[in-house]
Parts: sequence; C-alpha cells; structure tokens
Amino acid sequence: MIIVLKPDCTAAQVKSFTDSLTEEYKVKVNTWVGTHSTVLGLIGDTSVIDIEYIAAQDVVDSVKRVQEPYKKANRKFHPDNTVITLPGGQKIGDGNLCIMAGPCSVETEEQICYVAERVKAAGAQFLRGGAFKPRTSPYAFQGLHASGLELLRKAREHTGLPIVTEIMSTAHLPLFEDVDIIQVGARNMQNFELLKELGKLRKPILLKRGLANTIEETLMSAEYIMAGGNEQVILCERGIRTYETYTRNTLDISAVPIFKKLSHLPVIVDPSHASGIASLVEPLAMAAVAAGADGLMIEVHNNPAKALSDGAQSLTPDQFDHVAKRVFAAAKVLKEDM
Amino acid sequence: MIIVLKPDCTAAQVKSFTDSLTEEYKVKVNTWVGTHSTVLGLIGDTSVIDIEYIAAQDVVDSVKRVQEPYKKANRKFHPDNTVITLPGGQKIGDGNLCIMAGPCSVETEEQICYVAERVKAAGAQFLRGGAFKPRTSPYAFQGLHASGLELLRKAREHTGLPIVTEIMSTAHLPLFEDVDIIQVGARNMQNFELLKELGKLRKPILLKRGLANTIEETLMSAEYIMAGGNEQVILCERGIRTYETYTRNTLDISAVPIFKKLSHLPVIVDPSHASGIASLVEPLAMAAVAAGADGLMIEVHNNPAKALSDGAQSLTPDQFDHVAKRVFAAAKVLKEDM
Amino acid sequence: MIIVLKPDCTAAQVKSFTDSLTEEYKVKVNTWVGTHSTVLGLIGDTSVIDIEYIAAQDVVDSVKRVQEPYKKANRKFHPDNTVITLPGGQKIGDGNLCIMAGPCSVETEEQICYVAERVKAAGAQFLRGGAFKPRTSPYAFQGLHASGLELLRKAREHTGLPIVTEIMSTAHLPLFEDVDIIQVGARNMQNFELLKELGKLRKPILLKRGLANTIEETLMSAEYIMAGGNEQVILCERGIRTYETYTRNTLDISAVPIFKKLSHLPVIVDPSHASGIASLVEPLAMAAVAAGADGLMIEVHNNPAKALSDGAQSLTPDQFDHVAKRVFAAAKVLKEDM
Amino acid sequence: MIIVLKPDCTAAQVKSFTDSLTEEYKVKVNTWVGTHSTVLGLIGDTSVIDIEYIAAQDVVDSVKRVQEPYKKANRKFHPDNTVITLPGGQKIGDGNLCIMAGPCSVETEEQICYVAERVKAAGAQFLRGGAFKPRTSPYAFQGLHASGLELLRKAREHTGLPIVTEIMSTAHLPLFEDVDIIQVGARNMQNFELLKELGKLRKPILLKRGLANTIEETLMSAEYIMAGGNEQVILCERGIRTYETYTRNTLDISAVPIFKKLSHLPVIVDPSHASGIASLVEPLAMAAVAAGADGLMIEVHNNPAKALSDGAQSLTPDQFDHVAKRVFAAAKVLKEDM
Repeated sequence: MIIVLKPDCTAAQVKSFTDSLTEEYKVKVNTWVGTHSTVLGLIGDTSVIDIEYIAAQDVVDSVKRVQEPYKKANRKFHPDNTVITLPGGQKIGDGNLCIMAGPCSVETEEQICYVAERVKAAGAQFLRGGAFKPRTSPYAFQGLHASGLELLRKAREHTGLPIVTEIMSTAHLPLFEDVDIIQVGARNMQNFELLKELGKLRKPILLKRGLANTIEETLMSAEYIMAGGNEQVILCERGIRTYETYTRNTLDISAVPIFKKLSHLPVIVDPSHASGIASLVEPLAMAAVAAGADGLMIEVHNNPAKALSDGAQSLTPDQFDHVAKRVFAAAKVLKEDM
Repeated sequence: MIIVLKPDCTAAQVKSFTDSLTEEYKVKVNTWVGTHSTVLGLIGDTSVIDIEYIAAQDVVDSVKRVQEPYKKANRKFHPDNTVITLPGGQKIGDGNLCIMAGPCSVETEEQICYVAERVKAAGAQFLRGGAFKPRTSPYAFQGLHASGLELLRKAREHTGLPIVTEIMSTAHLPLFEDVDIIQVGARNMQNFELLKELGKLRKPILLKRGLANTIEETLMSAEYIMAGGNEQVILCERGIRTYETYTRNTLDISAVPIFKKLSHLPVIVDPSHASGIASLVEPLAMAAVAAGADGLMIEVHNNPAKALSDGAQSLTPDQFDHVAKRVFAAAKVLKEDM
Repeated sequence: MIIVLKPDCTAAQVKSFTDSLTEEYKVKVNTWVGTHSTVLGLIGDTSVIDIEYIAAQDVVDSVKRVQEPYKKANRKFHPDNTVITLPGGQKIGDGNLCIMAGPCSVETEEQICYVAERVKAAGAQFLRGGAFKPRTSPYAFQGLHASGLELLRKAREHTGLPIVTEIMSTAHLPLFEDVDIIQVGARNMQNFELLKELGKLRKPILLKRGLANTIEETLMSAEYIMAGGNEQVILCERGIRTYETYTRNTLDISAVPIFKKLSHLPVIVDPSHASGIASLVEPLAMAAVAAGADGLMIEVHNNPAKALSDGAQSLTPDQFDHVAKRVFAAAKVLKEDM
Repeated sequence: MIIVLKPDCTAAQVKSFTDSLTEEYKVKVNTWVGTHSTVLGLIGDTSVIDIEYIAAQDVVDSVKRVQEPYKKANRKFHPDNTVITLPGGQKIGDGNLCIMAGPCSVETEEQICYVAERVKAAGAQFLRGGAFKPRTSPYAFQGLHASGLELLRKAREHTGLPIVTEIMSTAHLPLFEDVDIIQVGARNMQNFELLKELGKLRKPILLKRGLANTIEETLMSAEYIMAGGNEQVILCERGIRTYETYTRNTLDISAVPIFKKLSHLPVIVDPSHASGIASLVEPLAMAAVAAGADGLMIEVHNNPAKALSDGAQSLTPDQFDHVAKRVFAAAKVLKEDM
C-alpha cells in the first residue's frame, strides 16, 4: 500500500501517523520524503487494512493498493485452478466445458422433468431451475418455493443431474440442505449476511456478479464465503448495467479472462440473463467459450411463451440442442488448440 | 399497456392472443389493425401484468406500459403528500426540512451520546448510526451489532432523538423492535425477502435507492413494503454508480423532483454517501434542499480520522453546525418563496 | 410510430393534432380511442419524423417507434450482407475474417515497414497506423500528421497492404485522398460535419462506435455517411464506458450479433482499445470471432514499451503471430460449423 | 508521479529505467526499495509525462499521478477565480449569477427577437440560440446555419444581449467572428482539432462537458484551449450518460463544487439538456445555484410545441419568468449567507 501524504504535513505528523500504522497493523513502513510530498510504503499483510480508513486521515492525500484486498480467492497464493467435484463425479473447472441448463422457474413436475431430460440429452451436466425468484414487482410470480425445490429433486432422481438453484434468504437455508449447488443471485451478491452463512456450508456456491459490481467487489464477495471456510465458489458473469438499452444487461466478456487471471476459481457465463434475448444466447455462449469460460448457464424452457418468468430469453429444447452442439464443438477445438 | 404485434401475425393468432389476455387478466383489449402491424391496447388494471411475460410471446414485437407498474407508491392514486409522524411527534414530509445525522458506525457510548447531543443542538431531529455495517471486505469492521443497538438506545434516552439504523437480514428483526426508523441500505434495496418482512411491520422504513437501480425499481421496492400493509416508506437518494471516479457515487439530484412527482412518499438525500467526500457534503446538501428534498441524512463523527468506517465523508460536529445552519436558512427562504 | 396522447385531450385537440401529422409528414394516422387515453398509429415513412418534436407536443404523453429511424443502414431494406471490395481485391464482409493490424502511431519508416511486413506475414490483410492521434492531453504526442501518412504509403508500397488511418478534421481531407480506408475515431462518431463530408467520398469508412454511444446512435452515424451516397461503411465495436475500471473500456460483445441483425454492414472488433491491456487482446479477439465478427483491428508495435502511444495495449509481432494463428484457426472451424 | 515497479525487476532494470526517466523528462527520481517491490517518485513537472507510456513499460506494475495533468486550468497555480468580462461589460464568474437563455434552434427573426426581449426582461444577460445543430439523425432539422447567425446578430442589435452559439466544425470559424461566446457542444468536447483552433482566438469559449467524459477529461479539454493562449474558458455541466432512462441525461451536480475546487474557471449548468424535461428545469436550476454554479444556460422557446428541436425541454417565456425570479432570489440569499 502506497500512501501519499498532504504537502503541508509536518515531520511530527508524519512520525505520529507512521507510528500508528506500525502499531495497529503490524506492518513495516518505509518513508520517502519528496520535494512536495512524503510517500509511505507499507510492507506486510495489507489486505486487512481498510483503505477508506487510511484515506480519511487528516494527513493523507491519497492511497493506492499494490496488493489485492482478497487472499483466499487470489491466484497469487493459489496458482493452480480450483476444480470443484460433486459427489456424483461432475467436475467444474477441470478444463472441460460444463453446462447448467433449465428453466428460469420450476413450474410443474412434467415441465421440469421434461426439460431436465432434454438438456441432459444435449450434454448439460447440471439442471438449473428457480424455486425462489427475485422479481422487481411484488405482483409478479415469485416461484413455487419449497414445492419447487421438491420438483427439482424429482427431476434429479429422474435424470441424475445435480441441481443448481437460487437462495434468497438465510431463513430458507434448511430447505437447501439437499441442493447440490446453491446460487447467489446478482441482487444478493452483496447480501453479506447471506454470504457469511454460505461460508459455513461445505458445498459449492455459484456466485453471480452483481448488476453493477466491479470485478474486485465480486472477488471480495467470494472472499466472504471463503473466509468462512467454504472454498467451493464458482464465479458467474451475467452482464452488468450500462447505458445501452438494446440488451437487458451488457455482457462483460472481458471479465472472463480477468477473473481467470486474478483468481483460481472456476468462471462461468450466463448469456441468457446477460442479454435477455433468446437469439443472442448462441453468439454470446460461443464468445464465452472462446474467451476461456469454464462453463455456461443457459435458460431452457419447454414453452418459452408460457414461461412464468424470463420467457423472452429462454431457448426451446430444440434450440438448446443446437447451441450445445456448437459450444461443445468449439470447446473441443479450442482446447486442442491451446 | 400497448402491445405491438409482429408484422406477420395471422388473424387467428391475433384473436387467440387477444382472447388469452382478456381471460387471464380481466382487461379489455382494443385492437387496431395497421398496414404493417397490429397494435393492441389493454384497458383495466395492468399493473399486475408481467411485461416480460407479454414480451416473450411469439406474436409480440414490443410492449410499452402507459400506466406505471406501482400502485400504492403512485401519486396518481394518492395525490396528497404522505406525512410520517413518529410517536414523539417528529414529522417527515410535512414541508419542513428534517435532518438525520450521526456517525456511520456506532463505536462507544461516549461517542454516540456526544455526537447525538451535538447534532441535536444543531437542529437534527433524528440520530443515525450503524450497528450492522455492510462492508465490501470480510476483514473490515462489521459493526457492534446488538451492543451497537443498545448504545443507540442510550443515546436516544440521553437526547430524546428517535434513532435510524440499518438492518441487513430478516434474522435480526427481533433486535430492531425498538428502533424508530429501520433503514434498508442500498445493497439490500432488492433483497425482496427482507422487504416483504418489513412490509409486515407498522413503523417507518427508510429505503435507500440501490447503487445501480432506476427510479422505477426504487418505487417498486417501496411497493413491496407497502403491498404488505406498511405504508410508512421514506425514499432516500444516495448516489448511483457511473463511470465518473472522482466521487464515490454520482448524486442523481434529478431523482428528487422525479420521486416527488411520481410518488407521494417523503424523499430525503444522503450527500455523505453520494459523494464520499466531506467537503462536498455542504454543496450537495444545499442542492438537495433547493431541488425540493424533504430531508437530509448526514454523517457526523466526533473524530472522522478515527472513525471505524466512512471517515473520509464524515463531518465533524463543528462542520455539521455550519452545514445545518445553512440548509435550515435555505429551506426557510425557499419555502416562503414557493 | 405509436403516439399515446394525454388522458385529458379533447376530441378537437386530437383532430387538430392528427390533421397536422397527416399534412406535415404525409403519413396515414389511425386513431384508437381507449377508456383512459387515445393512441395514434402512424403509417408510412416515419424515419423522417423527429421523435423529440412529437414528444414536445402539448397533447402527447409518450411516443414509441415501431420502425427503426435508419433506412440505408437497415437490414430490413437490404437483406444481403454488404461486402466491401478494395481496388486490390481485399474484401470485408464476405464471410472471411479480415484483420487490420499495426501500431497505434506511425513513428518511423523502419518501424512502420517492419510492423507491416510482420503483420502481413501473420495473415493481416490491412495495415493500420495513426498519423493524427486524438489525445486527452494537449501535451501528449499528437502524431506525425502529413509525414505519418507519407510513411504509411511507403509501408503500403513495401508490402501491398492497403492502409487504414484516422481522420480528425474535415480540414485534413485533402491529405487523405490516397488512404484506402478512412477511420472515424470513437471521439468523432458524432462529429456530424465530418460524417457529412465523408458521405461525399466513394471509399470505405471505418466507423468506430463512440465511447458512450448506443447501438442505434452508431447506426444513425453510419446513416449520415450513407445518406450522402457513400455506402461503404464498416462498423467497429471498440468498447464502451462503464463503471468498471479494471479495463479501459468494456467490450460490448453483444453489439456484434446485434449490429449483424439490424444492419447489413460489416462489423469488426477492436480488442486492443476495448481493453487497453495487451494480455486481454487474445481472449477478446477469440470472443469476437466466435460472436460472428467479420474482422479485427489489433494494435501491434515492434517495441510496445517504446511506443509513443498506447503501448500498454500493443502486441509485439511475435505475440501477434500467435493471436493471428489462433483466430484464423477458430474462424475456419466456426465457418465450417455454421 | 508514483511508479510501482514489478516485483521481479532486477537492480539493473531499475537503474536503466530510472536513468531514462531522468533524461527524457528532466525530473528527479527518488527510488524506494521495498521488500516486494520498488517504488519510484518523480519530482518536477510531470504534467508533460504520458501516463500510458509509463504504464506500458515492461518493468512497470502501475502508475499513480500525484499532480493533476492540467496546469493552466488548475486552481493550484491560479488561486483566484477567473472572471470573464465581455466588451459590453457583462461578467461571468464574479460572484453574480449569469443566465444564458434562448431557443435551442434559431428559427425566424420574429421568434429570436421576441424570445430575446422576453429573456432579457426576465434578467438573462446573454442570448443563446443554435444555428448549427448536432442531430443524431441526418434527416432531422440541422439549423439555419449562416442565416441563423445573421438572425442572432439581429436579436443582439435589438436587445443588446451578447450571443452564445455552438460551432461544429473548424470550417465554420469565419462565420463566428462576430459571435460573443462560442459554444463547444458535448459531442465535440474531445474534437481536439476544433479545440486547438479555438485556442488561437481571444474570445470566451463555453465548453460543455461531454456525454460520458470525466471531470478530469473536461479540464484537459479546457487545457487544450488554454494551451493555445485563449484563457477565457467557461465550463458547463450538462448531464452525463448513465443507466437511468427517466431523464435524457443525469445531471452530475457534484461536478459544480468539484470544478470550482480543481479549477479557477467559471462553471455554469444547463438544466435543460441535463434532464430533457421542461418541468425539471426549475428544481435543477435551483440545485445548481445552491451548489455554487456561476450561471445557468436555459432553453426558452416562444412555442415549445412548435420548436424545431428540443421542444420537450424548453420553457415558455412565462415559465422562464418564474424560474428566473426564483433563481435570482435564491442566488441573492445564498450569496449574503456565505
């Protein structure tokens, strides 16, 4: 951490501030006195230092981190890719493309079992489906809740696909005991109380990047879960909010190689939510694979026009067959090629 | 609601779609057949219709709302300003300027009581202070939790000021029974499970606009609380995320007159979080008052350089005296003038 | 165009407004009277109607376009892809991947000739290089101007590669007579006087999307050039400005399939400017190809650390060899596959 | 300027890089060797150093400016406010509120003279009006050009109000010789060739902040003009592009106190373009004055519904009377109060 002090600091002020840093944080402080300003360099573990606290000090002009503020999610300290293995043997992050597919909302047993069969046949290794749905309007369909989770379990029995589904409150945790991968939605990425509870579990957490969160903030939210001891975190880029209105969100494709560079965690992409438009799912899924994503999360519905949520971005099973064929082919070629 | 159908729809498709709308939503549908496309106009209560569901239909090209999707928060149905009155007689939204002031985090009894005295002396009618702090880093100070709430109660006893403090999880609700105004922070504005629980209470909720949420989404979150029966919602503009990095967020000052136009709820502004810079609090507070805000929320700390959070944006009690004097003077003149 | 009138319009107002529309724009107006409001549907060529003018009318509540406001750039009226063929036979938009590569700034004859040779050897079909450089600071290197263009011509003679270079002012047009493809930079995308002059030429124009311009605005700027009679426009996605600071800009990869859907013009991607980081050029170039781009524009410099501009995002010739090999291989596979 | 070197730099690399900095930029370099990385501090005039050039060096990890990259626009070197005085004695930046008002587009002699009379009567000291209009669509009204300027001159003769009007191309400069204040529109804020030409003049330039430009970039564009010797620059905040769609742009009210802090130049606000909605002009104008703006630019049209451009955001003369009365009253009180 580099701290630039204000030009008019006295030597006594510099000393007093330097001493306080040494004491409070057990860091070594190097002082460099320039013509206009004094610069301090902190050596040691600065990830525990609150940069805003430092910035608030009277004597401080500005602060710059040299080290990232996350440790457990940081590739520097874990150079190898994390591979998450489910009890059934499915792997995420081992160099193969994993696909999580299914409807936005679980609606009926027939629906979820049919979609599960179809996505499995197309090559998806995981079934996604929402039982608790975050909706902007209190008057919109909010999901089937416990009975939706029950239907997901039936579809799992039926097909053997592990299930991925979103949690919206710590109060619902008991219902999620049997869920294979728990998803944290974009709107809850900084619901820190929820993250802390998920850190106590020992099962994979799919963490979606928030609507307007930075790459660093996303890694800090992963750090929340990992700090609790649960190191099975999967990062998911799902589009960010920008001024462009043609798509629902703007897929930040650069986030894929950046997450891979900064962190050892697996990275997947959700082209369905990123665009909100079914016809864009294929090109965005292809782009994600080409950019190095470890997996995809894609919405598939037996009858998108009758979907209780997000129909406009859902693929039909036939459309998904086509997309899956193309992305697996591309992943194979790209892997050989690297 | 205006629905533009795709150019190639058959008459049978139009009829089938129109019939389904009439049945499902009990609305009247007017059909207008143009040269290129057919347009439908829906009459009745369309606030319960999920616009995305409509957009997902095969026959639909695009949809446009004419009515807003919120009802209880809508000024059209409640032309008079809502005035929230606390048991102690304090009012929000009655045309007078209300100020909520205090430290970002509650730290010690001395601190909170001293700040409470000082902000009361300067004219603040409410004491703010955080006991549960949403922090980006798991390694940063997270607040004193239950004991922080206890200290706030002591400061209330000491000064008579009602207290405003943030809740982060439904699990903490029992601790907040005695809190006068419960704050929902920006990161939780779309924590819908939390909003639903707050809708069951009968006490004022201060709802902060999310980091990257629209004005309409903010009103929809207010609607979540109000739909549960709790109509005491205070809207708070606290800056939105943009590309500009000089300030922590960009205060969307236009939101003040827009919220006032679209809704009957009181609107306050938090210039401290909006800018993240203490020296900007005064001009932004002045701007908020001039734009028609009903109140302000301002961070004041006895010793900002030693604040455990957000010191860079906190005013000292002396600085707050000055700001309070200016904003009350401006509010008085502006009120006479209108 | 659908126009929703204000609820309190009188029949006389509706008639008077409708008559004025019919007269001024030679459109047919269908009127649909609802319970709360009257809706007008305009039939005919509405692309010449100024939507803001309509929105400003006293009787108008809101307006919605059904037709896009661009015609010449619109795929609806030109279903086939535009293929741009240069005098030397190079084609853009014919289904093959075209690559424009070279340094940000032309610096010396040795530099530009060497880079031209290297990028040609790697498969690039066009040489890019800046002679007029838009720089944020007046104190930064502004390019070699006329002598830079002269050096580009020498490199063209040397290698046979057509040259692509940016124009910054109509005053420089005479210097660009011999340039093969004239580039309009992101900062000039809405320099309408420049666009009008380029519309009078009969040579390809590479139009970069502005820093914060929408997809529709980009197509409207293409329309400016095409309205003047020059239909050889190449669209270039180069990243947009968002709140994320890790990359210089955020590559809007979705823009590639959207531009291809809405328009018949060729679409290329500039991963160098989109990220500002050399190590991201490869994954973003791969993503662009996978998303369906017709080409790439990539910065290559003999010695990035000594580049007079944009060194941080430039590849060395060796790095470019690798990227070119991978993107050509991917393009080949993806083409077979489609 | 603080430069953090990569952890694995050798002593020889550090020395070689340090030497090159000393030679090229005539700065003194202080070297501080930490445990993990070496940090360099540059002393001297670093405003001429291209930060991107430094960042591109192999040995460099990151760079941080301590000094701002602008000099002539910088308050540090010019502590007193710049006051711009027109030949007719009107002043901008002397502590009084100046208002520039008039129609978006000049349309007819009657229109511009009538509006000029009315805004003068209401207290405006300058007449604004567009003769060259930047329009998104090539099919929209582009202004009356030379004859529009002629009409502005007539209105000036008629009322004595100096005129403010936008230039869109260096090619039009001869037509602007007689214009009192030349406006650079948001879309041309980084049209550097235009800025350079305006730097050669000796008359006030009103520089509008670009649609998606930062505060620092705006000051750098002012620096372009000032570097040419023309120090009469007026900064204008007119709203930035964000994800919020209710308003056309988002007025960045914080920019007012920040511009005043960083620079000595006068700062005005354009609430008409910032919102695009006539009813928001008053609250935003009030907010601008309260935040410390030196002036306002407001669109006024004799008949907004018939305005050839921007009618939706124009005030009628009667509405402007009311706004002017309120803002002058507020400015008077606020001035006394400070």
